[in-house]
Amino acid sequence: MSELRKDPITGRWVIISRERASRPSAFNLVLKRRRGILCPFCPGREKETPPEILACRPPEASAPDIPGWKLRVVPNRFPALGTGEENGLPEEGFFRRREGIGAHEVIIESPDHGRRFSDFSPREIEAVFRAYRDRYGELKKDRRFRYILLFKNEGAQAGATLDHPHSQLIALPVIPWMIREEVKGCREYYLRENRCIYCDLIRQEMETRDRVITESDGFVALSPYAPRFPYELWILPRKHHTVPDRSGSEWFHGLAVILRECLQRLDGVLDNPAYNLYVHSAPLDDEESASYHWHLEITPSLSRIAGFELATGFYINPVSPEEATEKLRRVDMKISKQ
Amino acid sequence: MSELRKDPITGRWVIISRERASRPSAFNLVLKRRRGILCPFCPGREKETPPEILACRPPEASAPDIPGWKLRVVPNRFPALGTGEENGLPEEGFFRRREGIGAHEVIIESPDHGRRFSDFSPREIEAVFRAYRDRYGELKKDRRFRYILLFKNEGAQAGATLDHPHSQLIALPVIPWMIREEVKGCREYYLRENRCIYCDLIRQEMETRDRVITESDGFVALSPYAPRFPYELWILPRKHHTVPDRSGSEWFHGLAVILRECLQRLDGVLDNPAYNLYVHSAPLDDEESASYHWHLEITPSLSRIAGFELATGFYINPVSPEEATEKLRRVDMKISKQ
Repeated sequence: MSELRKDPITGRWVIISRERASRPSAFNLVLKRRRGILCPFCPGREKETPPEILACRPPEASAPDIPGWKLRVVPNRFPALGTGEENGLPEEGFFRRREGIGAHEVIIESPDHGRRFSDFSPREIEAVFRAYRDRYGELKKDRRFRYILLFKNEGAQAGATLDHPHSQLIALPVIPWMIREEVKGCREYYLRENRCIYCDLIRQEMETRDRVITESDGFVALSPYAPRFPYELWILPRKHHTVPDRSGSEWFHGLAVILRECLQRLDGVLDNPAYNLYVHSAPLDDEESASYHWHLEITPSLSRIAGFELATGFYINPVSPEEATEKLRRVDMKISKQ
Repeated sequence: MSELRKDPITGRWVIISRERASRPSAFNLVLKRRRGILCPFCPGREKETPPEILACRPPEASAPDIPGWKLRVVPNRFPALGTGEENGLPEEGFFRRREGIGAHEVIIESPDHGRRFSDFSPREIEAVFRAYRDRYGELKKDRRFRYILLFKNEGAQAGATLDHPHSQLIALPVIPWMIREEVKGCREYYLRENRCIYCDLIRQEMETRDRVITESDGFVALSPYAPRFPYELWILPRKHHTVPDRSGSEWFHGLAVILRECLQRLDGVLDNPAYNLYVHSAPLDDEESASYHWHLEITPSLSRIAGFELATGFYINPVSPEEATEKLRRVDMKISKQ
């Protein structure tokens, strides 16, 4: 089983996972990517993955782990964290560690190999978020978990090791520090102002409109004021909810429509970039919070993180969010809203 | 001039630098790297860089900006931060920003194009750290600066945009949050234990020796207990000093010798990897601190940072530091200690 270790100086946790080292591409920077017949996510090769946890299938094709599915959720074959008993690990001086308890699942988003997420129909994108909602609801029953993350790497430059469209779910037994910093910032603002900072942010951005890319009834897509990366993009629900599964059922369709539009705008400006996409939601013990507001972040992979960023956590971004917004707005959209 | 912007939720600063967008390789993931005659850092092309600030030249070649030098320090032609007057920028609601006051310099470490740092003689490595010490001493006189960072990107996969051996110096008007977290962790430990946490860490690691790669009179090279990256390596001075320039003159040679040995060990295990190297020192207003201990960190660029890390700040490392230490120790070293 993998191990969680805490840096004694900063308190930051890392996952030491030997299982991940056995991945075919653990160390290949130039990824040798498997296509077509060799892809473990393609129909007909269901036995290449662990048995499915969840799937969308038409009524006539109901047996698991055979072709006919539209979407499958399976455990990651090389999980960063594993389920199993927690027995405690011996401490070593002031070092702290614990067993790598958690879950690591893959959402295979379509039977079709090599499709970009931006080419999915809103209905197909919806299905991914419905699967996420269902798995989130299941995983949170395990009281050892503190946080559940949905993320997607599109393209080799964004860290994807397989071309087949998929996203990933990780359930963690500790709250990651970046989430903790966000939650803390929201909480402090709430105690001072008695309002949610994201709600205020949306209000302020809708007034100036300098960084509003697009909007719908339920959502706003913004370039954040202090983006780490060029063309970083956030999608925020207008209504205050801490986690996506509290947002009501209409949000699935609304989110799928605006997400697809944003991805197509990024494709238009950046010529089909690699990117990372992830949902930030409240920690599991804080789902009732009045101060945290779930949202989705997209960061295109245009340049490498180098020494300065690794040393300081400080990012240098060569494109202002106002300039990015203007270019993203100007993309000629011929999108069906279905 | 560039701009510093603060994220209203987390308080994290970023640099928005349009100057950096005009770099030839700002957006090329596959870097078209300039070699030989086209390299602006090669002798004979001194006019391609801004005028030199500092140089090492033999006595007979004393005019600036002509060949004959062994090392040159020049301002970065595409600086992330600039010097100049600070007039204050208008605020916008709860957003905070300020002008990008700072310095961004390049240390051209050798006249010879394409050499790896690990092939430098200890004397040549020493010269780089002496230049760093001299520029650090000069830059800290500017009372607007809060932090000075030395870092080096070796290889395109580590973000280097030119093959010619060089490192970079950035002076910042704010303390980067990663440094703040380290300083805070050290301070809390000191208040609790009345000792420096790094001094205690060295003591504990020297007892178990599970993560000690190599050592000398003045320094210890360790795999950290909770490394973000495979084969991450720290070099710590045994004596408590907050910044390298307080460490006495003998440290230059000692540091050069152990750093070269570590780089050659990494070359041996990882077949000349790309890597990032950086010095962590105390913020400028905290140089007398009893709790902070300067050190050097090296992180090989073996895999990409992907969605999980970008979303959470949580790193998955497939190689344990004990395994890395063992492999690094086993490299057959035929190094002259000169």
